[in-house]
Amino acid sequence: MVNQVPRGDGSWQSCKSDSSGASNSGGESSKESSRCSTPVLDADRSDRLRDKMRRRTESGDRWFSLEFFPPRTASGAVNLISRFDRMGSGGPLFIDITWHPAGDPGSDKETSSMMIASTAVNYCGLESILHLTCCNQTNVKITGHLTKAKHLGLKNIMALRGGYPTGHPEAESYEEDLRRLKEKVDAGADFVITQLFFRADTFLKFLDDCRAIGITCPILPGIFPIQGYQSLRQLVKLSKLEVPEEITSVIEPIKDNDAAIRNYGIQQAVEMCRVLLDSGMVPGLHFYTLNREVATMEVLRQLGLWIEDPRRPLPWAVSAHPKRKVEDVRPIFWASRPKSYIYRTQDWDDFPNGRWGHSSSPAFGELNDYYLFYLKSKSSKDALLQMWGEELMNEDSVYQVFTCYITGKPNHKGHKVICLPWNDEPLAPETNLLKDELEKVNRRGVLTINSQPNINGKPSTDPVVGWGPAGGYVFQKAYLEFFTSSENVNALLKVLKKYEPRVNYHIVNVHGRNLTNAPDMQPNAVTWGIFPGREIVQPTVVDPDSFMYWKDEAFALWIEQWAKLYEDESPSRMIIKYIHDNYFLVNLVDNDFPLENCLWQVINDMFELLDAPPEPLNDGTVSE
Amino acid sequence: MVNQVPRGDGSWQSCKSDSSGASNSGGESSKESSRCSTPVLDADRSDRLRDKMRRRTESGDRWFSLEFFPPRTASGAVNLISRFDRMGSGGPLFIDITWHPAGDPGSDKETSSMMIASTAVNYCGLESILHLTCCNQTNVKITGHLTKAKHLGLKNIMALRGGYPTGHPEAESYEEDLRRLKEKVDAGADFVITQLFFRADTFLKFLDDCRAIGITCPILPGIFPIQGYQSLRQLVKLSKLEVPEEITSVIEPIKDNDAAIRNYGIQQAVEMCRVLLDSGMVPGLHFYTLNREVATMEVLRQLGLWIEDPRRPLPWAVSAHPKRKVEDVRPIFWASRPKSYIYRTQDWDDFPNGRWGHSSSPAFGELNDYYLFYLKSKSSKDALLQMWGEELMNEDSVYQVFTCYITGKPNHKGHKVICLPWNDEPLAPETNLLKDELEKVNRRGVLTINSQPNINGKPSTDPVVGWGPAGGYVFQKAYLEFFTSSENVNALLKVLKKYEPRVNYHIVNVHGRNLTNAPDMQPNAVTWGIFPGREIVQPTVVDPDSFMYWKDEAFALWIEQWAKLYEDESPSRMIIKYIHDNYFLVNLVDNDFPLENCLWQVINDMFELLDAPPEPLNDGTVSE
Repeated sequence: MVNQVPRGDGSWQSCKSDSSGASNSGGESSKESSRCSTPVLDADRSDRLRDKMRRRTESGDRWFSLEFFPPRTASGAVNLISRFDRMGSGGPLFIDITWHPAGDPGSDKETSSMMIASTAVNYCGLESILHLTCCNQTNVKITGHLTKAKHLGLKNIMALRGGYPTGHPEAESYEEDLRRLKEKVDAGADFVITQLFFRADTFLKFLDDCRAIGITCPILPGIFPIQGYQSLRQLVKLSKLEVPEEITSVIEPIKDNDAAIRNYGIQQAVEMCRVLLDSGMVPGLHFYTLNREVATMEVLRQLGLWIEDPRRPLPWAVSAHPKRKVEDVRPIFWASRPKSYIYRTQDWDDFPNGRWGHSSSPAFGELNDYYLFYLKSKSSKDALLQMWGEELMNEDSVYQVFTCYITGKPNHKGHKVICLPWNDEPLAPETNLLKDELEKVNRRGVLTINSQPNINGKPSTDPVVGWGPAGGYVFQKAYLEFFTSSENVNALLKVLKKYEPRVNYHIVNVHGRNLTNAPDMQPNAVTWGIFPGREIVQPTVVDPDSFMYWKDEAFALWIEQWAKLYEDESPSRMIIKYIHDNYFLVNLVDNDFPLENCLWQVINDMFELLDAPPEPLNDGTVSE
Repeated sequence: MVNQVPRGDGSWQSCKSDSSGASNSGGESSKESSRCSTPVLDADRSDRLRDKMRRRTESGDRWFSLEFFPPRTASGAVNLISRFDRMGSGGPLFIDITWHPAGDPGSDKETSSMMIASTAVNYCGLESILHLTCCNQTNVKITGHLTKAKHLGLKNIMALRGGYPTGHPEAESYEEDLRRLKEKVDAGADFVITQLFFRADTFLKFLDDCRAIGITCPILPGIFPIQGYQSLRQLVKLSKLEVPEEITSVIEPIKDNDAAIRNYGIQQAVEMCRVLLDSGMVPGLHFYTLNREVATMEVLRQLGLWIEDPRRPLPWAVSAHPKRKVEDVRPIFWASRPKSYIYRTQDWDDFPNGRWGHSSSPAFGELNDYYLFYLKSKSSKDALLQMWGEELMNEDSVYQVFTCYITGKPNHKGHKVICLPWNDEPLAPETNLLKDELEKVNRRGVLTINSQPNINGKPSTDPVVGWGPAGGYVFQKAYLEFFTSSENVNALLKVLKKYEPRVNYHIVNVHGRNLTNAPDMQPNAVTWGIFPGREIVQPTVVDPDSFMYWKDEAFALWIEQWAKLYEDESPSRMIIKYIHDNYFLVNLVDNDFPLENCLWQVINDMFELLDAPPEPLNDGTVSE
């Protein structure tokens, strides 16, 4: 359990932002956001954590940060990444990931410190710090770690050991320990984070002593909300810290009551934090979360620091990789699988002018890499079978799965369908705007995997469809993407002739047979925003080139995530295989965004054509 | 008069498109427009004339082209360039400029063949061919001309001599002449244009004979509408052509009646062209205009080939320079001086992704170059003094000039004000939408030089504000730019506080004192369009960087074009100089394009503040 205890190795703690990894595009202002992620549309695209911290401090805006340690198992990693998403929504200035010497921390393992920190930056869009224990290491090894970190977009390093506010247990003396800290700061550290402590006075005295010997950089208090009796004991043993009498005297009598101890821990942390913040000397608080959510979130809520901001800088989550911060256009196809998109485009050097541009130049990553662990389903095989059917009878069984997913109603065995192979993420709130129509068409085998309503100039602050800074207007063209049978496609193609040139379509099967009325290979912008004092932002496009890459992924998911749940040669597997082999993937865009969305009418027309009696062979006269 | 006669030197005529000058951006389709200029938004951005010609021929769409010769004087050049704009509006596939050996044709003179052709391409947006007489020339000299032409964006060369449908007068024989033409075509000519002729049969026989010996490229008939007795005689003498009896017998009796001859010429040309087109062998007609408009336009109208298409590919005229064809964003400031903008940015290498981008990287050309002849006023000094006032009494005299320009009403001396120093072009039709408001504010010294109304999603085919392909929607933010006194600016700044953040402003005086509420140096898109199957197009922006370059030009025009009309030290000159030294240049953008334009309210509020009695010093209590 050593590695679940923060700073269990008693290491130095101070942080250095590596500016060399940053690549801010020219001509940008350096004003700063008050959010952790850096919205492309904000004036403030500074890449450097120390600058963000300085500006938040100068603005008088109190902030917090969160510390996590690497999990031991792959499924633990998947859970931790979900936790990053949830805790990231409260607005931490940064998160940090401890260095786990026993866990091969610099490796490519799913559970390594390096990979967890990389995932936080690249896929969760969180400003992140990677710890690095620098004692007992060769120069070559450390340089290797730093090079790799930089390549992964990790530009903040917490160089350990140190930072005990009462002096490191192995230090010659408190004074000597302070002198060593001064040396590290003089060597270029941007700020210091302390080891945990139990009394506000401990920190405030340490802060005074640091200032007295000329340490002027920010010093952040490390806050440890007591979460349980055992973890506290473990911590004390490893860190050689002494728990004050006033705490042990409360805890000992309730040591078997986890809830009581946690409540006490929350209350104790809130009180200590209030003293720290009221001192005027502490601009922000650093939390040792122990990878748990409840206690830290509760402390932050009581302090008023946890601020869930529903505003989205863009309609999709911006990656915090320094290179990708300027990215502001993506194809719509990966809207529900953003991590897959980031993964498959991670080697793109080029986001010219922040534009995603034509997909034809940069190569999409290979599809056979998609087994990467964080792209895997978060649900177990058993749970998936319960949702998607232990045994499929026919194609209609599949239609029912899609319908249950859309409606949120349980299937006939009583299980809710909370995910489909094509969705990393829960249904977007705006999908509710289309729910009734989606239900109707899925029931009849129009198996929708992506859709958006048309929007004609709603305020950018709209809680459902808004994004970007206040004072703007957002727009969308209606979009619908679905699998459907070749019989349906034949009828659809006839119907679509009536909707020229209003509706653009791309229809493709697994073999790549491609039907389209798009006049050329240009992308079609389907989401855009107009903001005060800004150029037009068009974050989402339907791009014909990348659709062919997405097609491979979308069809493969039928087999890899669904068919393979069943025995080889089983009827269930054969049904999914049949759909994979014979259905078409269709996308439709209604270009007339100011009018009522016509895509439902298109689908209805298709059903009507299918339902109509066959036309007589002669031109309308009925022979008797 | 030799040079006013086409092919007076009896030279070879065939045309070669130089593909090396073309630089089409990757990934573009090669489909073709049916218009002469190449709209950025059309799928068809092919740079090669021969491909355009082929596609128009394949589509069965008949087309025409126009030949001009270089004028002898600078004022003749200014007139010819206006004629290019007018005749370009009828939709020629290309124009061509003859090589004038006696006029230093490859020089930088305003009247050289090279400069006239360059102006047609770069400033008028016309696909153009430069003639080049290749006989009696050194290789070095020809290479020099070609290099220069390429640099100027002239990629089509008509290599002379030749092309007589009855055989060149100096040829050994008709058969030998045809054989030489075959050699030129085999050497790579894309198409052939013939010398003029008087009977359709002459051309059709020539065409047959060419095909018989294996000349397969397009052969265009050169059409010469007879426009006067003298010019016909001159032509006959130089070209050694024989005028058929049926023509001389009609012309001789009416040789002193210019109108009658021209009418006959039109009728004769129309009849001959009909025979040619009806033969099915002639996809297009080439006209020897003799630099005149009426006869050729009338022939084209009667043939139904003159098609004025009010659709604009973008809200500003697209340059036909191969490098600039991809340009699709410009700052709004030069909206009424597009030639100045093209001139000052002619050395920009870089229109990345067709975007104008930040002005900070490419350097604007020096302001002191703006005396370039085609940026000069088209009116004489006397005419300008009549419009702008022989003698100015005070600032109010200047306000009246602006007001007369806006209203179109004559000034107190009875002269209409048809131009101002800040306008190359006539008032845009959309300015009429603002006329009443503009008149009101100019009368009070808000001297407007640029404005556009807000537009919230009008069809792209709207005859007044539309642009781009059909099926789209165009949008604008309201924009207003004006000079005004520092007294007004002080009141305006107070008023603008009420309009935060709805209105963005930039206010600057001649010394560069700059007041703005723009949050950073990002451009503000003020014109954009949404089209089926396309990315968003935003052709016009308010860009803070380039505004500072425009400011220099806008202030300099007061002195260079207005003050200098008057004697040194004269009161009139001092008044203009006072305005130049003391007024501010203001631009305002109303970001709330879906709401009613608030900029007039801003100006009204400013006037109200100025008209209000001074506020008491204490807070509202009146002492007696």
